[in-house]
Amino acid sequence: MNDDFTIGLDLGGTQVRAALVRAGKVLARTAARTDLSGPDEVMRQFGALVAEVSQVAGSAPVRAIGMCTPGPLDTVSGVIDHIPTLPGWEQFPLRDRLSEIFGLPAIVENDGIAAAFGEWQYGAARGLDHMVYVTVSTGIGGGVVVDGRLMHGARGMGGHLGHFTLVAEGPVCSCGRVGCFEAVAAGTAFGKRVRAAASGNPASYLGKMAEHETIEGRHAVEGARAGDAACLALVAEEADWLGSGFASLLHLYSPQMIVMGGGVSVAFDLLEPGIRARIRRDAMAPFREVPVVPARLGDDAGLVGVADLAIIRQR
Amino acid sequence: MNDDFTIGLDLGGTQVRAALVRAGKVLARTAARTDLSGPDEVMRQFGALVAEVSQVAGSAPVRAIGMCTPGPLDTVSGVIDHIPTLPGWEQFPLRDRLSEIFGLPAIVENDGIAAAFGEWQYGAARGLDHMVYVTVSTGIGGGVVVDGRLMHGARGMGGHLGHFTLVAEGPVCSCGRVGCFEAVAAGTAFGKRVRAAASGNPASYLGKMAEHETIEGRHAVEGARAGDAACLALVAEEADWLGSGFASLLHLYSPQMIVMGGGVSVAFDLLEPGIRARIRRDAMAPFREVPVVPARLGDDAGLVGVADLAIIRQR
Repeated sequence: MNDDFTIGLDLGGTQVRAALVRAGKVLARTAARTDLSGPDEVMRQFGALVAEVSQVAGSAPVRAIGMCTPGPLDTVSGVIDHIPTLPGWEQFPLRDRLSEIFGLPAIVENDGIAAAFGEWQYGAARGLDHMVYVTVSTGIGGGVVVDGRLMHGARGMGGHLGHFTLVAEGPVCSCGRVGCFEAVAAGTAFGKRVRAAASGNPASYLGKMAEHETIEGRHAVEGARAGDAACLALVAEEADWLGSGFASLLHLYSPQMIVMGGGVSVAFDLLEPGIRARIRRDAMAPFREVPVVPARLGDDAGLVGVADLAIIRQR
Repeated sequence: MNDDFTIGLDLGGTQVRAALVRAGKVLARTAARTDLSGPDEVMRQFGALVAEVSQVAGSAPVRAIGMCTPGPLDTVSGVIDHIPTLPGWEQFPLRDRLSEIFGLPAIVENDGIAAAFGEWQYGAARGLDHMVYVTVSTGIGGGVVVDGRLMHGARGMGGHLGHFTLVAEGPVCSCGRVGCFEAVAAGTAFGKRVRAAASGNPASYLGKMAEHETIEGRHAVEGARAGDAACLALVAEEADWLGSGFASLLHLYSPQMIVMGGGVSVAFDLLEPGIRARIRRDAMAPFREVPVVPARLGDDAGLVGVADLAIIRQR
């Protein structure tokens, strides 16, 4: 058990967030809208956020600081290659700058891997030796624990779970490739299918809603909860894509459990039957009954995971 | 360095093989055509093969025995679930039977994982911390080394590298699913495309050859070496499928190297430019220049790997 105070930071395309963490518990958290001007401005934002959450530690020392970011991030060198959603971060030496600014031992980690570690240590997958964590939100990312260890890969870049192809022809992915798991199953792809259904049938539940607001995946989830057949079909299609990707991940890593996090997982209860049906159909016999469960730590998984990793790596 | 004598066995759908191994070197090897009557007969075959290769050890003791088999194999329990290509092996307690018959400490391992270990310890990937070995023959299998360790996964069933989908619609795989990497890129799929080309154009190089013999992938490889345009196109198509699968594996495991073995790798020199072109197109920037190289140990990789693992796991 880890009783030191640590700071976890999360650099997202929309929000920058900071948390004071001890033993897997968030003691204080704060956030701001990400400054899009560039890394210097964002690092100043983090300075203010850290000052705020550190007050809760009082006179107790903070031992380390960790930041998670979208990939691809070289966690060995600590240098960001680039961030697709944020301009100006090319080749930014993130770990060294964190250490300089805060005067603390610092680590950086891919946000999916950090969240996987959080769910493994304190969330849905406690005590397992093998688990795959998949975050399904705007994109798809995640992390893998195999043989009792968090998987890193060369330069810490393993486990880009959204970027294997599921279809040869299909939508173009954020990574530039065609037909990735992310391109067909992430929240963005789900939202596009939902908008297409709305515009294709103006008299429908979704079509009427589209008169007043921009339609997103969550509208189909609400419609499905209300029993609308078209919305139920859209949710079933999303579940089918997720199940297809999960079946591949079962074969590739042989986890004891798949943990699903991210914005789309708010609909986990609706998605689960379709995910399970597709896994039963597509996975080889010994993999068919591996549980798929929702994440427990929600938005905190990455913050808690990276804060904990920051301490562990100092030892 | 491992100076003990060990026995490596390989249970294949066509051949059963045995080798006496020391320090990664095969000192004696023998083989027989697999008896399809069932496991009792096959175990008797192995008895004769082991007696034969053991003679080379003279009076020096053999320390351990290991057998690799096609998956899915539970290497923790040592029990074979089933072997798609061999009848009668359902729920066969392979490790216990090996130990009984030969009176030696025994292990069992998936053939792809064993070959990956062989290539890592003694072949193309020596000294690396992260590598993916892919065997492309009748099917596609392989194994993964990540963070300096051989990856196993729950029940030792991780790394089924042939069974993630590349296409949503397409040929049915040996695992029952549609569009797996194996279903579109293994030697079997390549052979089918080559036969289709031959029957579609009887006046062509392949078409003429088909008058005299059953056409296989190797005929297209020979034709490509002779400069035949249709054969070159078939080889390029095979390379493209391989490159597509490899790009996904780069994102999933972040290896420092992909090692390609199996029967199809005899054409590695012809396939390489197409594999590389597809990886450059499909992989994210930090993964584009990861080397793809041919295996060095050929058919010995699994025998050497499983023999070595048999010793290591006794310690």
